[in-house]
Amino acid sequence: MHRVVVVGGGFGGLQAALALRHAPVELTLLDRRNFHLFQPLTYQVATGALSPGEIAYPLRAIFTRDRNVRVLLAEVADFDLDAHELQLRSVGDVPAPATLGYDTLIVAGGSRYSYFGHDDWSEHAAEVKSLESALVVRSRLLSAFEAAEEEQDADRRAAWLTFVVVGAGPTGVEMAGQIGELARDTLRHDFRAIDPRDARILLVEVADRVLTTFPPSLSAKAARSLEKLGVTVLTGRTVTGIDAESVTVDDERIPSRTVVWAAGVTASSLAARLGELTNAERDRAGRVTVEPDLTLPGHPEVFALGDMVRLHDRVLPGVAPVAMQQGRYAARVVRDRLRGKESAPFRYRDKGNLATIGRAAAVADIKGLRLSGFLAWAAWLVVHLWYLVGFQNRILVFIRWSVSFATHGRGARLITNS
Amino acid sequence: MHRVVVVGGGFGGLQAALALRHAPVELTLLDRRNFHLFQPLTYQVATGALSPGEIAYPLRAIFTRDRNVRVLLAEVADFDLDAHELQLRSVGDVPAPATLGYDTLIVAGGSRYSYFGHDDWSEHAAEVKSLESALVVRSRLLSAFEAAEEEQDADRRAAWLTFVVVGAGPTGVEMAGQIGELARDTLRHDFRAIDPRDARILLVEVADRVLTTFPPSLSAKAARSLEKLGVTVLTGRTVTGIDAESVTVDDERIPSRTVVWAAGVTASSLAARLGELTNAERDRAGRVTVEPDLTLPGHPEVFALGDMVRLHDRVLPGVAPVAMQQGRYAARVVRDRLRGKESAPFRYRDKGNLATIGRAAAVADIKGLRLSGFLAWAAWLVVHLWYLVGFQNRILVFIRWSVSFATHGRGARLITNS
Repeated sequence: MHRVVVVGGGFGGLQAALALRHAPVELTLLDRRNFHLFQPLTYQVATGALSPGEIAYPLRAIFTRDRNVRVLLAEVADFDLDAHELQLRSVGDVPAPATLGYDTLIVAGGSRYSYFGHDDWSEHAAEVKSLESALVVRSRLLSAFEAAEEEQDADRRAAWLTFVVVGAGPTGVEMAGQIGELARDTLRHDFRAIDPRDARILLVEVADRVLTTFPPSLSAKAARSLEKLGVTVLTGRTVTGIDAESVTVDDERIPSRTVVWAAGVTASSLAARLGELTNAERDRAGRVTVEPDLTLPGHPEVFALGDMVRLHDRVLPGVAPVAMQQGRYAARVVRDRLRGKESAPFRYRDKGNLATIGRAAAVADIKGLRLSGFLAWAAWLVVHLWYLVGFQNRILVFIRWSVSFATHGRGARLITNS
Repeated sequence: MHRVVVVGGGFGGLQAALALRHAPVELTLLDRRNFHLFQPLTYQVATGALSPGEIAYPLRAIFTRDRNVRVLLAEVADFDLDAHELQLRSVGDVPAPATLGYDTLIVAGGSRYSYFGHDDWSEHAAEVKSLESALVVRSRLLSAFEAAEEEQDADRRAAWLTFVVVGAGPTGVEMAGQIGELARDTLRHDFRAIDPRDARILLVEVADRVLTTFPPSLSAKAARSLEKLGVTVLTGRTVTGIDAESVTVDDERIPSRTVVWAAGVTASSLAARLGELTNAERDRAGRVTVEPDLTLPGHPEVFALGDMVRLHDRVLPGVAPVAMQQGRYAARVVRDRLRGKESAPFRYRDKGNLATIGRAAAVADIKGLRLSGFLAWAAWLVVHLWYLVGFQNRILVFIRWSVSFATHGRGARLITNS
């Protein structure tokens, strides 16, 4: 039987595996985590609106009935493209086979945040891409209010109540909006010595507007919505330093104890390695350039996709719909080949762009149709519930959101592992 | 205004604070965590049936509208009973006042697991009393099946598939039953190289039967239910050693990579300190002996309650209903005193004893009425949903349980922080 190995259980890898589950192949889905994470909502875990178990779903549970699909908890150590073999590394105590052969390889390793060469910033400025990091952010955010409540010194108290979000893409905008809601709404009556509404929330962006992938009119609307939530939008400004007690923006040192990183991403290191091995070009963000059918030059049996790759003629946005379409495309090519059929090149169908800011506030750009406010927010809700994996998660998240909306609360605001 | 300080936001402390929220007092509720944990269900977090955010609720959210209640994130370092003052220690980065004065002090510090002087066992045999430890157990349980799937050596594979639960009180019985369900039901179709039903689950108990606080007939029923789930019940046996790769039961060394500790508890160290300061007796489990009105000898203004105390004439079981009734009792005494009224001594109303084993299997002893099977299980469900704090949590847990029951699944089986 034709052996397919899919590396990565994110949006791209999961869709590829799902689209191949009924094909005449022997499929191995490899990930270093045992779950698929609905990354567009990790920022809601970071602000106590959702629990980890509501946006993550065990990979084995998805494929439990597909006897031709094997889920493997392991990491890729290296590729041997000539031998059609992966070298694996084990995760924790779980043993992994040393090598894994394939006939077709689909690599969907994703990306991670990059600190622009300042790796020491990562300690003070956690991101919200992984579940663990989102939980770190949650503990820090909530602890900052706790600390402000007991801090007697006015300057130190102000630093505890100053929250800086770096990067005003969708994640940064969503984070800043949620911190605004946390301060002005959820926690409003929770403290006795401080008024959480005094919190300063700064959203720092190097470009001249927020949400640069949206039309300027929607960026302006998003900025206004953010300001209503108490967020100060600082565009055209550069973060030049971050330490335990402050953020430096251009030349200005801003005392702050809580910084959230939502600026540039860099491709998985698997992209660099595949580039090296195939002499494929890589761009500044570490993405490897793939052929129009998402394969690597000289290796039609190796697909790479998602936000670790770019096409020759353009870079697609690093969002879930791109990865999902690419995953399904790669699976279709594999199925076509098994039937001796030719495949057309990959074509991205842009179904639109959504970002939420807060309670009943969002922006949407759907094929030129520009929405903001309640309608955009309703669209955002429906889309996110729809794509959430697992029927149970959909109901749970729906209830969390309904109760939060009705009560202005956030049930999952727990400080753990602190 | 009369200053009341409540130490501990568990069942006892929370009930005391709730019963005093409308009294003419200035109340401080002190805990080292920012949430109330519904401890009777942490074992369900440990087995992936529930998420942490579903059984924990922020303390501030409970008292958000009670302006006379202040929640303080801190630890007690020491008591100065003569000065009517607590010495505090800060938690993490959150500053705490050095001292805190009181007119009435209510100490509800709870208990923790004791390893019978073998503290080195704790590294290999995690417990499921705290949320963090339950998450460690969850990762270990799930990783063990992952490891067995990839392990090529038959003996090592068998060790990965051997699960030992130490102690057959309600928590141990519930844990063993849940591991049985996980292996025989939830994970049944999830693996390709192993059959999870081959898992050996051993429940080791030093007494001659499981659930010694129940009548022998129910213990026998519970043991039969456990055996149906594939659990081997080893009563009258003593654990004499635990290391990374095995458990020794009496003289027999059993290779096992996953051990869960559910044997004896010891009172919070606050009990020992209060005993020292007041010359109150302490018993072998570290509990301090309190007066019939739950105060400390010579200190009518200091109450201690829950499973860190015992009464002169008897030890009450270390369960939530005892702590809750004692918390409410202490609050009533405080209110009575403020009105110049005398209070009767504390009297425990035993409303019954429940333990669940698995799917539709439980035992209940309600004032002599002995139930088992579906009826006991239904009673268990209703009681646990009823007492769960927070309307939202009740719906979420209800849905999790309904979906798990219908699909035999467990959505929260994530391996994190591994």
